[in-house]
Amino acid sequence: MPLTIKSRAHDYTVEFHPTLASALAAVVHPDRALWLVDRRFAELHAPALDALAPSGRRVLVEATEGAKSFEALAPVFLGLLGRGLKRDGLLVVVGGGVLQDIGCFVASVLFRGLRWELVPTTLLAQADSCIGSKSSVNIGSYKNQIGTFYPPHRVLLTSAVLATLPPDEIRSGFGEIIKLQLLAGEPGYRELMADLAGFSGQPGLLAKWVARSLAVKQPYIEADEFDRGVRNLLNYGHTFGHAYESATHYGIPHGIAVVLGILTATHLSVRLGLVPAAHYAELKRDLAPWHRPFGDALRQAPPAQVFTAIRHDKKNTGTAVNCILTRGPGRMEKRPVDFDRELVPAVTEFIEQELMA
Amino acid sequence: MPLTIKSRAHDYTVEFHPTLASALAAVVHPDRALWLVDRRFAELHAPALDALAPSGRRVLVEATEGAKSFEALAPVFLGLLGRGLKRDGLLVVVGGGVLQDIGCFVASVLFRGLRWELVPTTLLAQADSCIGSKSSVNIGSYKNQIGTFYPPHRVLLTSAVLATLPPDEIRSGFGEIIKLQLLAGEPGYRELMADLAGFSGQPGLLAKWVARSLAVKQPYIEADEFDRGVRNLLNYGHTFGHAYESATHYGIPHGIAVVLGILTATHLSVRLGLVPAAHYAELKRDLAPWHRPFGDALRQAPPAQVFTAIRHDKKNTGTAVNCILTRGPGRMEKRPVDFDRELVPAVTEFIEQELMA
Repeated sequence: MPLTIKSRAHDYTVEFHPTLASALAAVVHPDRALWLVDRRFAELHAPALDALAPSGRRVLVEATEGAKSFEALAPVFLGLLGRGLKRDGLLVVVGGGVLQDIGCFVASVLFRGLRWELVPTTLLAQADSCIGSKSSVNIGSYKNQIGTFYPPHRVLLTSAVLATLPPDEIRSGFGEIIKLQLLAGEPGYRELMADLAGFSGQPGLLAKWVARSLAVKQPYIEADEFDRGVRNLLNYGHTFGHAYESATHYGIPHGIAVVLGILTATHLSVRLGLVPAAHYAELKRDLAPWHRPFGDALRQAPPAQVFTAIRHDKKNTGTAVNCILTRGPGRMEKRPVDFDRELVPAVTEFIEQELMA
Repeated sequence: MPLTIKSRAHDYTVEFHPTLASALAAVVHPDRALWLVDRRFAELHAPALDALAPSGRRVLVEATEGAKSFEALAPVFLGLLGRGLKRDGLLVVVGGGVLQDIGCFVASVLFRGLRWELVPTTLLAQADSCIGSKSSVNIGSYKNQIGTFYPPHRVLLTSAVLATLPPDEIRSGFGEIIKLQLLAGEPGYRELMADLAGFSGQPGLLAKWVARSLAVKQPYIEADEFDRGVRNLLNYGHTFGHAYESATHYGIPHGIAVVLGILTATHLSVRLGLVPAAHYAELKRDLAPWHRPFGDALRQAPPAQVFTAIRHDKKNTGTAVNCILTRGPGRMEKRPVDFDRELVPAVTEFIEQELMA
């Protein structure tokens, strides 16, 4: 059954399809659609795409951090306009988070707002980023400083495409799924861990946790679309996760960096007396399979780069760092943490000692 | 007395100040402000600007059509970020329409929406474009295809800066003022023409018609911020005006092209039997001082370029061209006009015969 998500710009639906072909065929007005497609995905799924998105109506983009930059957008706009995109047309975006960021930004400013539909192709995009309406693009050395709030008009999901994802992409998606279930509370988290213990790629389990994750996320984004209040809690693990991605030059997939960030935030919460050490110990044990061996990459990153990245995180104002801390599953809270006295020692200890075990 | 304009993003005020210094001093949080300023204006008004907008917190832009392009925006973003602009800061934009387009676009996407305040410095920007929240930027050879709806948080007006404008800039501003009074109806238009007959640069008259113009425009943009209905009527004269600007490579100032566009639309309305010829004859006589000698530039433009530009106008769909036509002052209406049968003969006649007289 489709979800309907409320948004200031326009409400939108998330629809579940059995196959890629049926998801693509659901696009409205295919005759007026231009397609923005992840190049690798287009190669893997050529037959399904060729039927609906002929190459003359398709702009291909590499899903790299560099493609998600303001400087790289002009060819995308010109490719779409040159292929005849009009204000009464639509943009169909097929890909993961990078394609979604590019497509959302382009659709939000082309003709001052163009209809777009999204076919998310990664577990992370399906379970998390496909709702919430944000885009982020980089400029120069500044990460994610440019963006818009502009949800797709429809999200067309199919777990059929997840089978072709590399294992680390699946783990990265589960990073955000784990985060969302920790936000949801104890029972959801336990059920997820039980399912994950027996996980070996079952499409049914992927589909289940995509739907469950969207159900957790939906009320946060509907209550606080512009991320000024309760939605901040969705950043649990992200202040540290973003810094770990940046300090390793994006050598750690996003969701896996979030898992490391969750552990860091929990370790810090223990040190600040917010949560018993037993909770951290449980997460440390449960989540180890979901980040190994990327902790090694983090341990090899220069600490100065980690701390510079945390300091420059766009959410900071003044000297303290706003962190999402935890009092246990379902009990996250935002708190300013003193950088030198509280944050640096906790993060250093986490990276130097906790990742060794 | 300030105006308050309603907008989906946020309501905003238009405040009237006696001097440039008082307008600039009214900016909130000058300590956190970065300034985007028209280079020529900054030279003309250095003392007032230097007091509040030191060069280290100022990005200068040439007010040219080329500056208003997507490709030219990266240095603006990097200039602002490099000078320390933060999400809790604000952008103050000082200039005319080009600066407003650039500033509005930048503010709308930087940090997914940054506070900005606008000090409009041309008559056209003060009387017309400063409210309504739209930005337009060019990309490649595509004009105005990229943009956003994102009003400033405050508009700080002062007619004190209008004295330094070249005469054609003043005439260009009056082009939009004339359009707005024609939309308002007979009495406003007659009063304007009476004032203009005795106009020799009096600041009091400029201030009066700035305020009167904003009062006409306000209900249109509040009722239809996203330009899907009644606001279309504000485009009276613009389908042709934009084409005349484009075909003369921006050799005709915008508001003066609008005056020529108003005459064209009225001439076409007469040919279609919508309005008596006497109305066109009156406008032709009244408006001659407000477009001469730019009709000559238009007569020298290749007709093919004029008609290509009309065809490519972004508001068109299908084969007919949507035009704002007139049944007399205060009685504009939107109508599809057959391109080959109705539009081309009327525009050709206007350019070849009407501009000669």
